[in-house]
Amino acid sequence: MNLNNIKTTVLAALAAAFLCASASAQAPVPDAAASDPARMGWMQGSPPSPDKLIRWSDGSFYKFPQLRWSFSNWAQFMPTTNVWRGDGPVARLPKAEKPGLADIRFRPMGSSDETTVGAALDANYSDSIVVLHKGRIVYERYWGVTTPHSMHIAMSVTKSVIGTLAATLIAEGKLDPKAKVTHYIPELQDSGYADATVQDVLDMTSGIRFSEAYAEPKAEIWTYVRAGGITPRPPGYSGPTNFYDYAKTVEKANEPGSTYAYQTVNSDVAGWIVRRVSGKTVGDLLSERVWSKLGAERDAVIAVDSAGNEFAGGGLNLTTRDLARFGEMMRLGGRYNGQTLVPKAAIDEIRRGGNREVFDTPANANLKGWSYRDMWWIAHDDHGTFMARGVHGQAIYVDPKAEVVIARFASHPAASNSAADPVMLPLYRAVADELMRGK
Amino acid sequence: MNLNNIKTTVLAALAAAFLCASASAQAPVPDAAASDPARMGWMQGSPPSPDKLIRWSDGSFYKFPQLRWSFSNWAQFMPTTNVWRGDGPVARLPKAEKPGLADIRFRPMGSSDETTVGAALDANYSDSIVVLHKGRIVYERYWGVTTPHSMHIAMSVTKSVIGTLAATLIAEGKLDPKAKVTHYIPELQDSGYADATVQDVLDMTSGIRFSEAYAEPKAEIWTYVRAGGITPRPPGYSGPTNFYDYAKTVEKANEPGSTYAYQTVNSDVAGWIVRRVSGKTVGDLLSERVWSKLGAERDAVIAVDSAGNEFAGGGLNLTTRDLARFGEMMRLGGRYNGQTLVPKAAIDEIRRGGNREVFDTPANANLKGWSYRDMWWIAHDDHGTFMARGVHGQAIYVDPKAEVVIARFASHPAASNSAADPVMLPLYRAVADELMRGK
Repeated sequence: MNLNNIKTTVLAALAAAFLCASASAQAPVPDAAASDPARMGWMQGSPPSPDKLIRWSDGSFYKFPQLRWSFSNWAQFMPTTNVWRGDGPVARLPKAEKPGLADIRFRPMGSSDETTVGAALDANYSDSIVVLHKGRIVYERYWGVTTPHSMHIAMSVTKSVIGTLAATLIAEGKLDPKAKVTHYIPELQDSGYADATVQDVLDMTSGIRFSEAYAEPKAEIWTYVRAGGITPRPPGYSGPTNFYDYAKTVEKANEPGSTYAYQTVNSDVAGWIVRRVSGKTVGDLLSERVWSKLGAERDAVIAVDSAGNEFAGGGLNLTTRDLARFGEMMRLGGRYNGQTLVPKAAIDEIRRGGNREVFDTPANANLKGWSYRDMWWIAHDDHGTFMARGVHGQAIYVDPKAEVVIARFASHPAASNSAADPVMLPLYRAVADELMRGK
Repeated sequence: MNLNNIKTTVLAALAAAFLCASASAQAPVPDAAASDPARMGWMQGSPPSPDKLIRWSDGSFYKFPQLRWSFSNWAQFMPTTNVWRGDGPVARLPKAEKPGLADIRFRPMGSSDETTVGAALDANYSDSIVVLHKGRIVYERYWGVTTPHSMHIAMSVTKSVIGTLAATLIAEGKLDPKAKVTHYIPELQDSGYADATVQDVLDMTSGIRFSEAYAEPKAEIWTYVRAGGITPRPPGYSGPTNFYDYAKTVEKANEPGSTYAYQTVNSDVAGWIVRRVSGKTVGDLLSERVWSKLGAERDAVIAVDSAGNEFAGGGLNLTTRDLARFGEMMRLGGRYNGQTLVPKAAIDEIRRGGNREVFDTPANANLKGWSYRDMWWIAHDDHGTFMARGVHGQAIYVDPKAEVVIARFASHPAASNSAADPVMLPLYRAVADELMRGK
């Protein structure tokens, strides 16, 4: 990592830290131990006292440190639709624990000092982690209010799940990635999506104007989350009242395919396409294709907007072990629990990756050489690593060569993963390397 | 049934019909087949067209016939908390189907003509029914959009579940039914609950002023549902924003114990007491005591208000088979699936019933000789029948002598069960009689 990259990383971390509530811009952000949501007693009491109460309506559910509680109790704040696990047995994840894994030493990017996996997980506001090696749980830990049966919000890991459904429909010949978005969704004819293809949407190269800079109050992301009902609307609000109506208002900024920009609304358009092509809601399709065959421990739930449209950009909630099962299914090329859940061709296509040139932007300074494809992050490294990633530290890390899958939920004060990537990416790799070495 | 009772029944049915949206006061209410929610195509399409869309914000989710869809998709309209089923196996309900059950003939109250069980279930907007005889499923049917794995809202059947938790804490000596409500909830000292005992609250004899006349726009029930966030609030709303804050505003109308009045807020106060005494949320306590031992097929969910307080008056959602399992557990005196879920003393106390004299009101004209105890309805008949009952037709019917449990969900256009009781009560009894005769 050269000096420029370090500077970018530091700037990104600062920008990310700024995302926290204005209060925390004045006061230092409490560390992981001090912000432990169980220790802080959020929502304890019958009813909780005002200083322990977390609400959607006053926005406290998404403020730090309250979000450390909210992320494991998301359905309590907004409407959700259910992703049924079916009535088959749970797919066992055999335990072969290696407690020594916490002692693995590694060096974060841009740091001259080593740290340990255990210390770094503690410090980076982890809520849970499950590490699978050859399908067996070698390491599993929970922090704060997150338990093995907690459903934690997956944030943008949701995108990768939607992308997998889209890739499945493509592999089955039901969805043409080269077709215009408007071939499936004519409602977007007058929007910035008019010239984009399905693949542009899936690869975040749609060319729309949509700033995801959380620190700018006028960024499109804020209009978007208000439209979807993720955050409260100001009095007299007269804008769009669901994700799809919002997508119709998006403008064009660049030629599709020419630039990469991480824009959450693309995922909702992907979800819209998946619904239109399959004739099912995202929740029902996900249950039918994946959840009912995955041997999941629990149902998943997806936050919905006021028209019942799934929040495909970030609304999936599921247990950590089920997140690991999903990752393991991806590692195994779509075959898991004795069934084919996703065609191998779809996963091969995802792993082939996207356009690395357009991906190489300042925002991706920690991800040199990576690309984005079908809503997955592809490392193009010597292990064939690929990831699903969500703000505040949510992740599936799949290392096919090391036969390792890491599922992690977190509630980092910074939304952008650029804050913790310099630690977490080397950590994931160090774990995979160690397991591959058979230690 | 004498002439007076018939008149009361007709009046009640008319009043109940008036509850439907004003549109339906002008147009005839569509019958069960015409209002079948699958046939009507609610929420079909990607996204649904405006005429097929059901929303919380415009109140359509609780209008007839839309509610026929909403009742099986409640979590999509409001925040919920989860009641975890634990990770044990599902308690099998062996099948011993008797399809002939649909052909049983019976005579509704006040009618000179007989009808059949099948025809009456069809006509009365049934969504699902499971009939258990000696623990085996002898009859099971689903209508419209309700499936064996659908979670349907239980409405006031929720009250009986909360009442069972309270009765459990009483039987365990942790809650004193003779103590004042304010002994546990001092916050209600200045409210109409000041003189009421815990038992008064559980038996709907608290003496508070609270009209549940849905047809009167100024009835307290409307302030209550707005406070709890069950229905949208008008612009500029400045009243209470959760159930417990609402309860503090309730006034006294009568001496506690002297009158019976079915007042939903009593159930929320019961829920509040249960939380305060157990130190757990209703959802967690219900999971710990019942759901994790019941061998439930699915988790349940409970609607919560904006402060995370469970809607103890009506917010439980669960599958029909799990509703039947709960009823079977009650029939068996609290022992089910190899464990004791509820102390037998608690169920004995419930079945002993409440004050039959105060219960004998015009509103209870269809329930002559019955009483209300610990949020359950006790028939005091020759079979020892007792019921959990919710608006629009939700029911658990427990007939200990016939060893029969009937779990039913419905979406009748009339909220008040007085509309359908003249058919449904004789129907339940006819089914129990037939099964007891071994046919």
